[in-house]
Amino acid sequence: MSSDDDSDKVFKALADRRRRHMLDLLKDGPKTTGMLCAAFPEIDRCTVMQHLKVLEQADLVVPQRKGRERWNHLNALPIKGIHDRWIGDYAAHAVDLLARLNSDLEIQPD
Amino acid sequence: MSSDDDSDKVFKALADRRRRHMLDLLKDGPKTTGMLCAAFPEIDRCTVMQHLKVLEQADLVVPQRKGRERWNHLNALPIKGIHDRWIGDYAAHAVDLLARLNSDLEIQPD
Repeated sequence: MSSDDDSDKVFKALADRRRRHMLDLLKDGPKTTGMLCAAFPEIDRCTVMQHLKVLEQADLVVPQRKGRERWNHLNALPIKGIHDRWIGDYAAHAVDLLARLNSDLEIQPD
Repeated sequence: MSSDDDSDKVFKALADRRRRHMLDLLKDGPKTTGMLCAAFPEIDRCTVMQHLKVLEQADLVVPQRKGRERWNHLNALPIKGIHDRWIGDYAAHAVDLLARLNSDLEIQPD
């Protein structure tokens, strides 16, 4: 599989805001599928599992079986891949400064 | 506009591999629209400009007019936003180590 195919999967997975919100929750720590269902009461278990499958295929979520439970872990490596592709080590410091400058300017009173 | 709407635009823009390749080129430095057309001879100028418009609406490309030329600059801030959303300062070092370990393992002879 080409890296373009891998990237297609990652960006397809991230294109959905509910899947992005699932990753937000997993950033705080692994969650069972049941916990994720409880966090999204507006969708049914089957839909939660479909979203998790898309995230797993993109390697953004890594499942771990413990008994009858499935713990879902955020895998940050594809996210780091996005960063490194267009920012990389060399520019990281400059972009960091720019982001801080930007947020400083945004909070200034006018 | 919500940050979900902003994220939708960014991931919609990045979902297309040709637009990702355009950003790859812009990473090396700003390019005129003419230079980008020359780099993608398989698509016409109008299509190149449509892709640039999607990238611009996502704030991934910032145009600069110089006389009759339009110079397209990569704006890395939305990319940094993706990184910070799911990695952030605290975990950045650990993910960095993990990525290096991963690539070291991949290049090991079996």
